[in-house]
Amino acid sequence: MEKINSVAILGGTHGNEFSGIYLLKKWHKHSEQISRPTLNVETLLANPKAFAANKRYLDADLNRQFRTDLLADPTLGNYEQSRAKALSLYLGSKEQPKFDFVLDLHNTTSNMGPCLLLVQQHPMYNLMAGYVKLKMPQVNISRDEDHKSKDEHHLLATMGKFGVIVEVGPQPQGCLRHDVLAWMEELTGHILDFLELYNNDQLPELPKSVEAYRFIEEVKIPLDENGERAGMVHQALEGNDFKPLKKGDPMYITFDDEVIPYQGEQTVYPNFINEAAYYDNNLAMSLSEKVTIDVYSTQ
Amino acid sequence: MEKINSVAILGGTHGNEFSGIYLLKKWHKHSEQISRPTLNVETLLANPKAFAANKRYLDADLNRQFRTDLLADPTLGNYEQSRAKALSLYLGSKEQPKFDFVLDLHNTTSNMGPCLLLVQQHPMYNLMAGYVKLKMPQVNISRDEDHKSKDEHHLLATMGKFGVIVEVGPQPQGCLRHDVLAWMEELTGHILDFLELYNNDQLPELPKSVEAYRFIEEVKIPLDENGERAGMVHQALEGNDFKPLKKGDPMYITFDDEVIPYQGEQTVYPNFINEAAYYDNNLAMSLSEKVTIDVYSTQ
Repeated sequence: MEKINSVAILGGTHGNEFSGIYLLKKWHKHSEQISRPTLNVETLLANPKAFAANKRYLDADLNRQFRTDLLADPTLGNYEQSRAKALSLYLGSKEQPKFDFVLDLHNTTSNMGPCLLLVQQHPMYNLMAGYVKLKMPQVNISRDEDHKSKDEHHLLATMGKFGVIVEVGPQPQGCLRHDVLAWMEELTGHILDFLELYNNDQLPELPKSVEAYRFIEEVKIPLDENGERAGMVHQALEGNDFKPLKKGDPMYITFDDEVIPYQGEQTVYPNFINEAAYYDNNLAMSLSEKVTIDVYSTQ
Repeated sequence: MEKINSVAILGGTHGNEFSGIYLLKKWHKHSEQISRPTLNVETLLANPKAFAANKRYLDADLNRQFRTDLLADPTLGNYEQSRAKALSLYLGSKEQPKFDFVLDLHNTTSNMGPCLLLVQQHPMYNLMAGYVKLKMPQVNISRDEDHKSKDEHHLLATMGKFGVIVEVGPQPQGCLRHDVLAWMEELTGHILDFLELYNNDQLPELPKSVEAYRFIEEVKIPLDENGERAGMVHQALEGNDFKPLKKGDPMYITFDDEVIPYQGEQTVYPNFINEAAYYDNNLAMSLSEKVTIDVYSTQ
């Protein structure tokens, strides 16, 4: 079994997601809170200009810039495209990562609670999912784009040998909630504890399987003939991230007061419901299906 | 009794407060929803460039530009200072307003529910408070800066002969919640109904007195020696807008995990708790005291 010794924790990949940014400040002062005997942990503010501007990004979403071909193209020169290349100097290439583990901290305006987003596949992630659910049962575990090769992946969390995203909400952009920060702090602590126990081959007995949600697709808000939003998420669905949405359930309401129900045959589990950052692209939410992670699987 | 016939409804005074902006769009298509026999109602998007940029403002807070001396100073020329002068051409001067009533629609990220903010004094507002509480008991009525003369007032809502602010939350910036929009729509409808009944001298019997909250002061988040925020609103207070805060109750928690209690002798009723727009100035919340409005008072 490979050891996982070097860890980079990044916050502020989106400049108006404050929990990670202020946790970095906290850990800068209280580094003992993230130190573990077998780990060398570093922290970095990923998008300092976006934080200074209190925006998600200046020119482009930083967390969509880490595909290998994009990093290799020097003509892509806006701020986040440049910052991604600077981060890849620090983190190493995907082929030769300098860190064994990259932890990327995010917030959402959606009512998703504390979430562990798995974006790659490896038996280690299955064990981590089991450990996190054992220690913090309210964590929602999500699998997204984990079929992609690392080179194809555009997420910062794929710049380590291993990596995950911690995503916690609900928190308005540019705002800091105590409960949301505390969830992120606790979940990050469990992940570091897991890595320590994993390195020492001292994991406790874990649940054999845990529940997770696998991304299916993003869906758009209803638009009018001019391409402008013609409605919003129905209040019966608002805040119900990771709860079942069945055929016929209210999904949207238009500005003509028409209720639009969910029309799919498959019961789905939406998340990122009404996420403010997705308004640019008129996205309303992501749909997921419930899956089971076999904790001791070798896949 | 003066009649109130001309009404201007403004939305998007802050460009990332979406409920009013999308209600204007809705009413543009369904104007019957805001028409009343004795009223001539117009609507206007107050800060179109801030809405296009999905920001509260471009250069300065538009809702702080309506003092008479500021409007008279042509050297104050940034975007919002200019837009305020453009709006004063449309709405008339404070001395000679073109509208009998100005209704300004706002959102907050705080858990304030539907609120009616009274920023001037007149017996008509007391009757309106009684009518609104009769029809929609969950409305919180707030009195703020109502001792100021109109000329001294910097709020857009003071540009009519009469005027109020409708403030509804919680809603993240740049986001549209069905429940929050519905509250704003209902409260606006009750205000228009009230004006119609007031004009016709047909108000129903109102409660003799209603509860309200009078602004005392804004308070700052704890800051460190560098003037940076050293903590956040404690989770025991988060979301408890308009609920009592007593001496010794947890108010803040620092990044050193120290709980800072409220130390005032007077029990207060905070609102705008952890409002994202107030981070620029490190404000944590406003404190109010509970007061009673005598609905039939002639003051």
